[in-house]
Amino acid sequence: MDQAWVEATFAGIAGFGKGTRGFNRLVFTEADWAACDFFADLMRDAGLTVRTDAWGNLIGRLEGAEPGAPAVATGSHLDTVPEGGNYDGGVGSVAGLGAIMRLRARGPLRHPLELIVFRGEESSRFGIHTMGSKVMSGIASVEAWRDVKDRDGTPLAQILAARGLDLARLPDAVRRPGELKAFVEVHIEQCFVLEQAGIPIGVVEAIAAPIRLKLTVEGVASHSGATPMGKRRDALVTAAHLVLAVEDEARKRAERRIVGTVGILKVAPGALNVVPGRAELWVDIRGIDETSLIETAGAVTAAAERIAAREGTQVAVDTLASDTPVPMDPGVIAAIEAACRRLGVPYRRMPSGAGHDAMNMARIAPAGMIFIPCRGGVSHNPDEYAAPADIVRGMDVLTETLAALAA
Amino acid sequence: MDQAWVEATFAGIAGFGKGTRGFNRLVFTEADWAACDFFADLMRDAGLTVRTDAWGNLIGRLEGAEPGAPAVATGSHLDTVPEGGNYDGGVGSVAGLGAIMRLRARGPLRHPLELIVFRGEESSRFGIHTMGSKVMSGIASVEAWRDVKDRDGTPLAQILAARGLDLARLPDAVRRPGELKAFVEVHIEQCFVLEQAGIPIGVVEAIAAPIRLKLTVEGVASHSGATPMGKRRDALVTAAHLVLAVEDEARKRAERRIVGTVGILKVAPGALNVVPGRAELWVDIRGIDETSLIETAGAVTAAAERIAAREGTQVAVDTLASDTPVPMDPGVIAAIEAACRRLGVPYRRMPSGAGHDAMNMARIAPAGMIFIPCRGGVSHNPDEYAAPADIVRGMDVLTETLAALAA
Repeated sequence: MDQAWVEATFAGIAGFGKGTRGFNRLVFTEADWAACDFFADLMRDAGLTVRTDAWGNLIGRLEGAEPGAPAVATGSHLDTVPEGGNYDGGVGSVAGLGAIMRLRARGPLRHPLELIVFRGEESSRFGIHTMGSKVMSGIASVEAWRDVKDRDGTPLAQILAARGLDLARLPDAVRRPGELKAFVEVHIEQCFVLEQAGIPIGVVEAIAAPIRLKLTVEGVASHSGATPMGKRRDALVTAAHLVLAVEDEARKRAERRIVGTVGILKVAPGALNVVPGRAELWVDIRGIDETSLIETAGAVTAAAERIAAREGTQVAVDTLASDTPVPMDPGVIAAIEAACRRLGVPYRRMPSGAGHDAMNMARIAPAGMIFIPCRGGVSHNPDEYAAPADIVRGMDVLTETLAALAA
Repeated sequence: MDQAWVEATFAGIAGFGKGTRGFNRLVFTEADWAACDFFADLMRDAGLTVRTDAWGNLIGRLEGAEPGAPAVATGSHLDTVPEGGNYDGGVGSVAGLGAIMRLRARGPLRHPLELIVFRGEESSRFGIHTMGSKVMSGIASVEAWRDVKDRDGTPLAQILAARGLDLARLPDAVRRPGELKAFVEVHIEQCFVLEQAGIPIGVVEAIAAPIRLKLTVEGVASHSGATPMGKRRDALVTAAHLVLAVEDEARKRAERRIVGTVGILKVAPGALNVVPGRAELWVDIRGIDETSLIETAGAVTAAAERIAAREGTQVAVDTLASDTPVPMDPGVIAAIEAACRRLGVPYRRMPSGAGHDAMNMARIAPAGMIFIPCRGGVSHNPDEYAAPADIVRGMDVLTETLAALAA
């Protein structure tokens, strides 16, 4: 499981969902299913027993020496954002596979090992992130998800049914208490802190939580040529003020590590000669300090009310998600740091600005994360790249961490 | 051709392209073709000889008493914007049909009469307005239109070919000099000047011209959770500043009747957890004073450069269209005013803020326009409405105008 193996494995995954700009492996698309099928074959070739749970999560298992001992799990995801990269999720999946292959070659450990490929870590398709680990950790609501549709309006239940999965059976995928001894995920950092510091490994202390809002603007559509400037209720002008309000409220709290983004803006009817009558903005606010996070969402909501009143439009604010920051387990953090020291690899403790499946797995097992650098800190972008040497170093640390936890 | 006939005819047209919100009869869609077929049958039933030119424009003709005399033409369009109304274009088509039916009943005039239903007055599908009258007046460029695609990327040539029309043959649809003695179009005002003044007829003096710009913003897509606020190149934040710059530059010149609108804004990749890397804005600036118009477009371009420099993004400005305001013909204006006086109908001279097929027809024939009120000034909107009594009054004025011009 060296650099050549890492490169070959990534080349294999790159065969799925590659477009003219980056990768499009949105969850439960053909490309995503094909990538999972490909990866399941690799897992089986590596000697793992592979099953698919009620959500489609892939679970590969290598039994340990002690019957009934809880498993030490690792893994990540293979789905991407639109025009995304091959490394976000891919690194944790490949490093997990490589680490377990190495440990299998060394001979049985006391605890079983598991490699999990979660489905739907990215929120791009359904507006909900880390869906697979939400299902597995028992916090997915079957009732709420009955109303979930993808970006094109297709119901989640219908998308699942097309592959023989039944939304009502999701509880079957929940892992029982005590089933897992620990969960460790390797991931690209998705920022440039490690790269700029020249440090190869980040040990995650806490995962930032997102608050996600949907802002719906109602104005009045009218003729762009015949409606005087003073008589307009232009939904896009209101939306532009809202975009800048999100930017402004996040910048005010940048030192407290708050970030705020409008990633989706839809304008209706969307014609050159019509003053926009409706607009929809999807807002993503994140932070590792819950108070700052709630304060920012409140400030955005207050700004929306002020802007709407001034512009003569209406803005509805819906909270799509409101999560709390998740600390990683001290025991797992210690195991990762011990592995780094044993290998002589420099590391730094750091927060994760992005959410990961590990934050849900932390509910049912002690969890930790290992970050590796990615070029320029670029992620969710066609230029996303992690060097094979860096991936191998992450795999080295993961291997020793799993070995210690499963001993 | 009374109110009952007007209501019945509009009810017939309403059968085509009606959605949950307003009408969707974008040019050359199934609904648009079906509406034209329906209307062609009405024209034939009214005793007109109906033909379709090389662009698909419908032309119904009633011969006059003098062989070879140039025709007096009227008409408008049946295509709509997305989620549009049934009256923009419909009023001029129906009033034209009713006026010619009345004149036919009165007995032959010296000049032939023509009713023209132009195809593609709205720019919503191809980003080009008044396509049918551009073809007929000889200013459509077959070469340029070979590269034209609709909003979904389908080439215009392919869309025409599907109905047996050939882009290369568009010159066949150009009307020869001297073929038309005059062109008169009835249209809803699309603003509330007539309604607020309680005046039933507007006599158009000049048609405002649009300058249309496409602004393309290039930023850098990156992870919305992991990218600190100070390190972003968010294309949507730049786009928001551009939307407000268009609004601001138009407002500064509102007294000179300049209006400015961003009707289309597209964001890529368009995901909740990705800082937008690209954005595209389609800008519509209109005015009846050419100097103010050019000044506004220049100010928007300068603002785009300033904003891009400040935000660290790049903005490309493409001019999609740059037209000049078009005065209506004094002789046709006089004929319309004489008709109003003869009928005892109050009228007001006014500009048209919106573009119409009459502005292209003015190149090949003396042209004029008759405005009628629409409720609340609302147009390009599901709530667009013109009262049957107002439509009949417009038809009355058109009938007498055509009678005088064709005598």
